[in-house]
Amino acid sequence: MSDFQKLQVTQRSKIKRLPKRGSQEKELIYSILDEALIAHVGFVNNEQPFVIPMAYGRKSDRLYLHGSSVSRLLKTLEQGVDVCINVTLLDGLVIARSLFHHSMNYRSVVLFGKAKIIKDEEGKMSALKAITEQMISGRWNEARIPNQKELKATNVLSFEIKEGSAKIRTGAPSDDAEDYSLPYWAGELPLKLTSGNPIRDPKLSDGITVPENIANYQRGV
Amino acid sequence: MSDFQKLQVTQRSKIKRLPKRGSQEKELIYSILDEALIAHVGFVNNEQPFVIPMAYGRKSDRLYLHGSSVSRLLKTLEQGVDVCINVTLLDGLVIARSLFHHSMNYRSVVLFGKAKIIKDEEGKMSALKAITEQMISGRWNEARIPNQKELKATNVLSFEIKEGSAKIRTGAPSDDAEDYSLPYWAGELPLKLTSGNPIRDPKLSDGITVPENIANYQRGV
Repeated sequence: MSDFQKLQVTQRSKIKRLPKRGSQEKELIYSILDEALIAHVGFVNNEQPFVIPMAYGRKSDRLYLHGSSVSRLLKTLEQGVDVCINVTLLDGLVIARSLFHHSMNYRSVVLFGKAKIIKDEEGKMSALKAITEQMISGRWNEARIPNQKELKATNVLSFEIKEGSAKIRTGAPSDDAEDYSLPYWAGELPLKLTSGNPIRDPKLSDGITVPENIANYQRGV
Repeated sequence: MSDFQKLQVTQRSKIKRLPKRGSQEKELIYSILDEALIAHVGFVNNEQPFVIPMAYGRKSDRLYLHGSSVSRLLKTLEQGVDVCINVTLLDGLVIARSLFHHSMNYRSVVLFGKAKIIKDEEGKMSALKAITEQMISGRWNEARIPNQKELKATNVLSFEIKEGSAKIRTGAPSDDAEDYSLPYWAGELPLKLTSGNPIRDPKLSDGITVPENIANYQRGV
């Protein structure tokens, strides 16, 4: 596979533990980023690490974050500090005969870089659309778009996806040879984020039905 | 409520944005920590922030982490560096008439402190039991417990839960007054991590049935 289809490997992004579980393939990394809803954003402020869960959106090789223009978090990220972003999908429990070999099946992406503030209105709207569509595909055209006052109150950050990796575990447990005869159940328990029935806003006007993209909501399809 | 039922508020743990969504109540914080499966652990190494998803367990006012004794991550944490731990449960999408007021319902905990390595065997076993039981209640007694070799290959860290807070959003969207007449559906879409059917290890011995705690697995009950 050619290099432009892969993210960069650097000292900080190199996978040292269980490297066979790792990958730099953009296609795989984007598929994980597109299925998840929450990114855990890590940064340092006065030598203190912070980890904040944030909604986000991806479009092409950019990941977009947003927040109130008076937020301390956004103000810190805007300064161009080093950021580490982790996005993790939990796919199941791995249940072994020995407790030592219990594990989880997961797909996880870690990215390194710096975020930049988007100043121009067109770029800001495009990024906000990516964040909206990440949450509910098609929603941008089914609600009132941001007005000037709202745009001013929102800061939007752009993060280039170029350095990082995915790490994945799938499949059955791997027990020690002598443990396979033990009388304990072993296997996988699949886990998935699933949606329940939509709950109408009590203040919803009569006669408005649930759109198809909310009624049949699914992640990872 | 008396102070010993609350976590400490400090400069780094004080909630600055939307403080009405915040809480320092231990009972609430523990309930979130007990329902989740993954903690996002943030730390700094050579001025670079890292965020790593990790399994964990809680018992009383301690959160336990574990990993290979040769892992760089564990070695860094063992040195007693400052750690920020975030645990987030995503409870639903908040769907408003305006895109600006779209949001998520969530329960999130952020903790600050330092981790300490557990050296004594009894403490290590007790912490590993907490990590196992966090994943599947009752599993400690239904699998082979760690032997001396496995204990030696595993480093276990203890993190005191004393400084931090929970942040929670629940309920319907909150639109601007003039938007309530817009012809867009609004409400909540509940989300939950749910389990599928257990998948037998292809190498499982005949006659071993799925235990009840795996067949009827649920989080948050």
